[in-house]
Amino acid sequence: MKKITILGSTGSIGTQTLDVVASDPERYEIAGLSAGSNVELLIRQAKQFHPKIVCLATKELAEQARRELPASVRIVYGEEGLSEVAAGTDADTVVTAIVGSRGLPATLAAIEEGKTIALANKETLVTAGHIVMERAANKGVSILPVDSEHSAIFQCLNGEDRKSVRRITLTASGGSFRDKSRDELEGVTVEQALNHPNWSMGAKVTIDSATMANKGLEVIEAHWLFGAAYDQIDVLIHPESIVHSFVEFDDYSVIAQMGLPDMRVPIQYALTYPERRPSPAGRMDLAAIGKLHFRQMDFERYPCLKYAFEAGRAGGAAPTAFNAANEVAVARFLNGEISFLGIERVIETVLGKLTAAGADSLEAIAEVDAWAREAAANV
Amino acid sequence: MKKITILGSTGSIGTQTLDVVASDPERYEIAGLSAGSNVELLIRQAKQFHPKIVCLATKELAEQARRELPASVRIVYGEEGLSEVAAGTDADTVVTAIVGSRGLPATLAAIEEGKTIALANKETLVTAGHIVMERAANKGVSILPVDSEHSAIFQCLNGEDRKSVRRITLTASGGSFRDKSRDELEGVTVEQALNHPNWSMGAKVTIDSATMANKGLEVIEAHWLFGAAYDQIDVLIHPESIVHSFVEFDDYSVIAQMGLPDMRVPIQYALTYPERRPSPAGRMDLAAIGKLHFRQMDFERYPCLKYAFEAGRAGGAAPTAFNAANEVAVARFLNGEISFLGIERVIETVLGKLTAAGADSLEAIAEVDAWAREAAANV
Repeated sequence: MKKITILGSTGSIGTQTLDVVASDPERYEIAGLSAGSNVELLIRQAKQFHPKIVCLATKELAEQARRELPASVRIVYGEEGLSEVAAGTDADTVVTAIVGSRGLPATLAAIEEGKTIALANKETLVTAGHIVMERAANKGVSILPVDSEHSAIFQCLNGEDRKSVRRITLTASGGSFRDKSRDELEGVTVEQALNHPNWSMGAKVTIDSATMANKGLEVIEAHWLFGAAYDQIDVLIHPESIVHSFVEFDDYSVIAQMGLPDMRVPIQYALTYPERRPSPAGRMDLAAIGKLHFRQMDFERYPCLKYAFEAGRAGGAAPTAFNAANEVAVARFLNGEISFLGIERVIETVLGKLTAAGADSLEAIAEVDAWAREAAANV
Repeated sequence: MKKITILGSTGSIGTQTLDVVASDPERYEIAGLSAGSNVELLIRQAKQFHPKIVCLATKELAEQARRELPASVRIVYGEEGLSEVAAGTDADTVVTAIVGSRGLPATLAAIEEGKTIALANKETLVTAGHIVMERAANKGVSILPVDSEHSAIFQCLNGEDRKSVRRITLTASGGSFRDKSRDELEGVTVEQALNHPNWSMGAKVTIDSATMANKGLEVIEAHWLFGAAYDQIDVLIHPESIVHSFVEFDDYSVIAQMGLPDMRVPIQYALTYPERRPSPAGRMDLAAIGKLHFRQMDFERYPCLKYAFEAGRAGGAAPTAFNAANEVAVARFLNGEISFLGIERVIETVLGKLTAAGADSLEAIAEVDAWAREAAANV
């Protein structure tokens, strides 16, 4: 029986994780769940999966849940509650499916308690990769990727010597606007941006896919997860999302991981690793798919990806500022405050103003993060 | 220093193996070489790579080599000589790059002496897979695949539990006539058949690629190498020969091995395994390639593949007869005795006449082999 806690259980990754859990109930037990404000769904999940503890964003939401759930379920709330759900159960694995760098304290709390991290919260690694990876190494904790691209790379590295890796290539579908020119992007709506061609995902990551900021976050995530230099990380446009990513080795042999675009496969792999188990996903039929297309990434078309590489290479405070500026810019776009192309302008402006050099400690990271959010809100 | 013997050093795989050896002379030493009748090339190879022993097909050819090579080089000939080169040196690895089932006794002799086999001689496994695999297992000898498809599968299985393999898919370029209809195949010439679109290979395997008998031999080879049931082995047409083959696991995750079509990559991998080393081959650039195509195998278009699956499933004497009939039919086609489509008719006729049920021993295999060759010569 594997005991699992999910941070962000009502979001896209959270609900798909519960799909995987429900597909093999003999194998998994839910120790804890956390949600933001979707209290109705959290209550339904708690009734179905019987966690010992649940967390909601506020005291009011927690009280609402209290009226519906049995007394045996502990109910907590807020940032402290989140860290308690992450660290205070007997879970083996914590799935970090929260969106944004606010997942950082809870992730660190889980690492401190020696829990395996199934990491879907890429902003955590982007904003504080050096701290997260160092603490995980010190505690002997595994950080298993849930992102389809990083799960692909992780699978391609199975049984291989990481020193013989020449290059890691992350594939990118191109997002909801891949067939639009830059001129055509000026007037696009939130609704159009949320319509991803291949993947069913939450709002933040769907917008990030359209701007390619998501791939930028993934590049920085890959840097930390696989110890790869930025010059060893490539991005390639692959509209079908069938080749999820690949690794080139010293002998020019390439190992790729493929499959239908279904997040339940990488989620399940993070839960069963190193085993593989029958999956609720479907079988890839390459003959039926017929053709796979690949084309070079265009950094002028997708400046957010260029900014991410620049921030990653600069290191220090830059990735934290990139991530915070992007989080605020996406929220402002979803709110109707700025245009789609405004997102990249916000990031560019914030990075241009950044003067803090380092972000060695959690306090310094929090300071840069707060500064960048403030700056991004006022662009 | 890895000590290597090459059986069939003047053929396509043999010369490419020597390319790999020459690309890293600090790493490899040549212990023995064997050729058929290409004595000039064998002499040049022996002068460059300094084997302790060489073998030629006949006494006359051996005497010719004797006049050119230093007295320190032992020179042998014929089938006995071949087994001596295979087994009688201090080589760690024997590359079996001979074409046809006549490579069997030398391969078994090398296994008996505990040498690692880098297997390019697929007919050996087709004709006597149960004996070869059993003797290798008894001696603790590794059989490392050199065929690009099997090397791909072998690489995809790195670090994986073989029990979680759901399906193995061998890709097939379709060979030199992949764009011709069956009607158009009636009048094709030997020269046209030898013009493979992607791979530089010897005559036998190039013709086998055009008839798809090669993929049939590979299916049977995969059955033995990876312990896969025939229902677990698929063949898919992939004209570009970039995805060299792939494995589907229980969770529907697919691991594929890719690269430019260059035999030096799988050859080198068999020599350096489990390490990977810089290769003389070139880098795959998927953006430059742009598109990959896949389509279902058509067993009516390629009956030789259908016969191979039938022979493999029937087991016993059938794979031996399939292979022997095919070897004779290809030789007769290359000789101008029969047409291209005559090859499949020869195989069909011989398999239709086969009455021997089993082929448990080497003697029984030799008998079936001789009978099938005789029958194939007279169709």
